[in-house]
Amino acid sequence: MDEKKLLEAMQARLDSLTKPRGSLGKLEEYCLKMASIQGKVPPKIEKKGVYVFGGDHGIADEGVSLYPKEVSFQMAMNMLSGGAGINVLADATGWDVIVIDSGIDGDFPPDSGLNAKSRFVRAKISRGSRNFYKEMAMTEDETEAAIGKGRELADDAVRQGYNMVAVGDLGIGNTSTAAALLVAAGLEADAVIDRGTGIDDKQLAHKKRVIKEAVVARRPVKNAYSILQEVGAPDIAMMTGFILGLEGHGIACVIDGFPVSSAAYIAYMANPKIKNYLFAGHLSKVAGHKTVLSALGLSPIVSLEMHLGEGTGAVIGGFIVQLALACALNMASFDSADVSGKDVEEQKY
Amino acid sequence: MDEKKLLEAMQARLDSLTKPRGSLGKLEEYCLKMASIQGKVPPKIEKKGVYVFGGDHGIADEGVSLYPKEVSFQMAMNMLSGGAGINVLADATGWDVIVIDSGIDGDFPPDSGLNAKSRFVRAKISRGSRNFYKEMAMTEDETEAAIGKGRELADDAVRQGYNMVAVGDLGIGNTSTAAALLVAAGLEADAVIDRGTGIDDKQLAHKKRVIKEAVVARRPVKNAYSILQEVGAPDIAMMTGFILGLEGHGIACVIDGFPVSSAAYIAYMANPKIKNYLFAGHLSKVAGHKTVLSALGLSPIVSLEMHLGEGTGAVIGGFIVQLALACALNMASFDSADVSGKDVEEQKY
Repeated sequence: MDEKKLLEAMQARLDSLTKPRGSLGKLEEYCLKMASIQGKVPPKIEKKGVYVFGGDHGIADEGVSLYPKEVSFQMAMNMLSGGAGINVLADATGWDVIVIDSGIDGDFPPDSGLNAKSRFVRAKISRGSRNFYKEMAMTEDETEAAIGKGRELADDAVRQGYNMVAVGDLGIGNTSTAAALLVAAGLEADAVIDRGTGIDDKQLAHKKRVIKEAVVARRPVKNAYSILQEVGAPDIAMMTGFILGLEGHGIACVIDGFPVSSAAYIAYMANPKIKNYLFAGHLSKVAGHKTVLSALGLSPIVSLEMHLGEGTGAVIGGFIVQLALACALNMASFDSADVSGKDVEEQKY
Repeated sequence: MDEKKLLEAMQARLDSLTKPRGSLGKLEEYCLKMASIQGKVPPKIEKKGVYVFGGDHGIADEGVSLYPKEVSFQMAMNMLSGGAGINVLADATGWDVIVIDSGIDGDFPPDSGLNAKSRFVRAKISRGSRNFYKEMAMTEDETEAAIGKGRELADDAVRQGYNMVAVGDLGIGNTSTAAALLVAAGLEADAVIDRGTGIDDKQLAHKKRVIKEAVVARRPVKNAYSILQEVGAPDIAMMTGFILGLEGHGIACVIDGFPVSSAAYIAYMANPKIKNYLFAGHLSKVAGHKTVLSALGLSPIVSLEMHLGEGTGAVIGGFIVQLALACALNMASFDSADVSGKDVEEQKY
């Protein structure tokens, strides 16, 4: 079915349901987008997985974050044992959790991920990015390997049968990397450099200076690969590869907060078509998030002032998309329920 | 425990969880409010019920709505058989559905509600409100009876063991009644009279004129009972009684769109303390909704441009409150997860 007919069929189904036309608001938009992604009416979500990419960031050595670097490893271990925010929210909204070591500076015990609440994927290429204030973040080989691993994980999502995936982040310093990527990509520095997890004014001024100077020093060419290599990180590059790799598989992808949205923006530079299967799960409290979502042309599903990362906003937003599909799938139609549907009669002309 | 200590204990618990301080954003506010409502830390939601008050509105005779009056009865029957939007959304988010005949102009068959997807409560006092453009909406007896039935339903919620209830509406013409109530209560007419379910500019001008003239003609005294009697309706009065009757039972109440929020505003006039246990589930697309939520001092949990009524926005918002509590209840603490929690140490001073 061509796109236009498909959307008409989806809208016709929505209009046939026992409700005033358009009264499900944004939920109807989500149904239309899902129909387009899956190429069928009505679209369905039967299995969902949130992929949390954990990695360390050399830029953390410049004192841009409030937390010590070892927290990344500890948080990943916590997530594997089911104690993180994403575990709780994913459990309550029906998502599998996949924790990816995309370059965490720590050694996971051999039994990590066995008997765990989350699936564990070992995808370590390095122990995180180099400090891009001083040198390039990754070698060319590392960059390619990271993007490739991300694409492999997209294949994993296909094999698992996910209709919807969410992307989450985990890693001290990753908002600095994300901001640097966006500045390198041409977005306005002061609009995208923010406090991350709660630094004060003085620390923010320092973070801005570090990132601006680093981008000037690294001089990436304005393309996705060069930017990732110069001021990126393996986890972010893996997210980018993951998002790119989902193309053509009929899987919706819900992005989370600022770091993930930045990875999505870099993926968008490489292939604008990815936007067609992206949802912005939420608007986080991180100031630059709004800017990058605007640049992507996406509206957030919820806006709860969260700034926890891990995919926590994405799973809430994605669940609301699933609710929308449930309405389209399970509500009665005017015909079947014998309700006087003035609008529906009009529609037949 | 006094309120201050209770909130401190709740905040301390939130700050002990493996996340940056405050990073759950609004979810943390919801936890604090729920702790205050239940008087305990951590608060829990184990059982939820959405009460949908259906009724007809004499004002519909003035041509203020797009739909014929018989649709109220048809929609209620549809809801009893599980085909309405609220059935689908409540099912997906764990709410019982209670459909109340609070004055629908139709005769429910004797077996209605048996083998039904929703519980059915017969609370018909009349076949809806009189046309308040021409005469007062209810007699004094009807008004008292309706409020009383609402209070009985609050007792029902206590008996059922609900920790959270949502309030939904169903009934052609109810946005006109809601607007008249708010105008009578002193809110600005042009800010609260809206299109309802999709009338055009000309019909809107007509609706505004009808409501303004009716409020002038009825001249209610500015108190909740007089306003309900002159320009209210049994379903709205029942919602008001229901919301008032929940006081002191530790039950959170999530209000839905414009008609329910108007009932809540009238309840608030009678007893401002009700605000302490109210959540605004969503912001609907009905223009006046923002005005009445502001007047109540409540911020909506989601904003999805829905305008379906039935409690559909409330159950989504209420579910997000439940997610917040799940985080507070089930996330690991810094101590238990062995995560370096700088903030937590600071907190001890």
